[in-house]
Amino acid sequence: MTPRIHAVVLLSAFLAVTARGDEPPAARERIVLVVHGGSGVRPRSEMAPAREQEYRRVLTEALRAGHQALGHTSRSVDAVEAAIRVMEDSSLFNAGKGAVFNHDGRNELDASIMEGREKRAGAVANVTRIKNPISAARAVMERSAHVLLIGDGAERFAFAQHLREVSPVYFWTPERWEELQKALHEEQAASPAPGAAKGGETDHPFGTVGAVALDPAGNLAAGTSTGGMTNKRYGRVGDSPIIGAGTYADNSTCAVSCTGHGEVFIRNAVAHDIVARMKYGKRSLGEAAREALRALPSEPGGVGGMIALDARGNAIIEFDTEGMYRGQITESGAVTTAIYREP
Amino acid sequence: MTPRIHAVVLLSAFLAVTARGDEPPAARERIVLVVHGGSGVRPRSEMAPAREQEYRRVLTEALRAGHQALGHTSRSVDAVEAAIRVMEDSSLFNAGKGAVFNHDGRNELDASIMEGREKRAGAVANVTRIKNPISAARAVMERSAHVLLIGDGAERFAFAQHLREVSPVYFWTPERWEELQKALHEEQAASPAPGAAKGGETDHPFGTVGAVALDPAGNLAAGTSTGGMTNKRYGRVGDSPIIGAGTYADNSTCAVSCTGHGEVFIRNAVAHDIVARMKYGKRSLGEAAREALRALPSEPGGVGGMIALDARGNAIIEFDTEGMYRGQITESGAVTTAIYREP
Repeated sequence: MTPRIHAVVLLSAFLAVTARGDEPPAARERIVLVVHGGSGVRPRSEMAPAREQEYRRVLTEALRAGHQALGHTSRSVDAVEAAIRVMEDSSLFNAGKGAVFNHDGRNELDASIMEGREKRAGAVANVTRIKNPISAARAVMERSAHVLLIGDGAERFAFAQHLREVSPVYFWTPERWEELQKALHEEQAASPAPGAAKGGETDHPFGTVGAVALDPAGNLAAGTSTGGMTNKRYGRVGDSPIIGAGTYADNSTCAVSCTGHGEVFIRNAVAHDIVARMKYGKRSLGEAAREALRALPSEPGGVGGMIALDARGNAIIEFDTEGMYRGQITESGAVTTAIYREP
Repeated sequence: MTPRIHAVVLLSAFLAVTARGDEPPAARERIVLVVHGGSGVRPRSEMAPAREQEYRRVLTEALRAGHQALGHTSRSVDAVEAAIRVMEDSSLFNAGKGAVFNHDGRNELDASIMEGREKRAGAVANVTRIKNPISAARAVMERSAHVLLIGDGAERFAFAQHLREVSPVYFWTPERWEELQKALHEEQAASPAPGAAKGGETDHPFGTVGAVALDPAGNLAAGTSTGGMTNKRYGRVGDSPIIGAGTYADNSTCAVSCTGHGEVFIRNAVAHDIVARMKYGKRSLGEAAREALRALPSEPGGVGGMIALDARGNAIIEFDTEGMYRGQITESGAVTTAIYREP
């Protein structure tokens, strides 16, 4: 059993550990958008400074895009979509362009989005030709009677809604291809039981991107997007497109986006569990997130984490891994980003 | 707004409304298995007595099969699987053999199962050639590292596990085919907006089967299986294969299987919501189920219902529709079945 170390990152603590830690914490200013790029970070010892800067640059770009969308439309769902699109378009994160490969050498993408006022939601799973799965999830929420569409059917719906189609080749990146080859090689060496259906371990076992946002009307929104697990098979779907597991939003409590070992997050309905601990157990946002994470079975290297935001602009970022690509932006546009857990 | 009439069916009330209502309620005997065949019942005025008897006969057969499995193995998960297989093999219910048709004239099946001790779970979605999807869900739970497998991939996994394959023609039944033709006709007459992706209304909009069971060791299990929605498109998936929405089990609270308007059940994470109201809100099983159902948006004709069972053998059956095909069996084998709500 690895002792679990919890990293609770409230506003002030968060500022203290980031590049902008020298700025005074704006304790009264609401956080309007929080993003994550997954809790499966590259070990600190292997992270070159230039690479770290690149991660922070894209996180900042995502935050600014979301903040700008919020400025234009005053709708939290626009901020979530805009921020996630930036991360999907980057090859750094396991979502969109940077998605990992499945066992058959294909990229199967999942995403979901939810708004907290009427608890409407949309999701897509196992899509292979949609450039921005988060936008497809949003189209399902707003332009269909359904919540979850999967596979070819989801693609037909998305293209009928004029979402951008790309060739599956668009998702090919040399780094992810290398990861698959490594996973396949390790699998062959280990000769697992037939049908064991295990995903290979990679540098980014828990890669996912997500965002939670709050708009001036007090409406919360949450979204999550992923390429899943390197070397996954058999149409495996994780928690990212599952409302209640990877994503949830309820104006009366909070908006949540999770990242981590998807199966564990589904079995524990983690996103809804945080909402329920606040709603029925009268816990604070921070208590609810910490307790929900602590309730999960421990795993070597950590099980994952989550970001959450309540209707008063309080944010919580919680993870039990070595780090989590993350950032947040306040009402006035002050950005902070971070990757590793601080001692 | 249709006024919602709640039908709370606790053991004694349940006995009173069933064919065996003349028997004294065995207040101290634990209920070990509850099944449902969906809350989308045929209107009472259209239900011939012979047809009603047929429904009750299959419900009884499912209960006896589950009870027998419990006698053999003392495992609640065996009781759930055995009971659901009987209902899947009948053409009466919208699951397995009796599954409804999608827009393209195909049958796409979904199922999930969960056990409450370690909260392990398995599910399959959009499978077309697996005779008993509940058994595939169980294979995912017990023989893979995953929770949710979908489409072709799920089938490849199931057949590698030696589950029984059938031709898609197996699922063709004249009644369901008629329902699709009627839905297509009505849709054409209404000429909906392109891409609206609405499912057609049928006699059985909320057809689903499910079971919850308790074994002598105090372990709970829950399972749900469905053919989804007549005339569904675009790879639509409802709540039945979604852990937390259609199915949940946690020994510390209860096992739940839901049926109804799947999108509403996903957006409200209904199965997990009942567990959470008990766990964090300290509600009784009955209060939790009633409150969870009442919290859903009202719909003309009702939104659906659920069965739930706690570790002491207390059962609850709740629905806001005209009826729900349902039944339960006690430790000693006393069976009760019912279809409609009593005044």
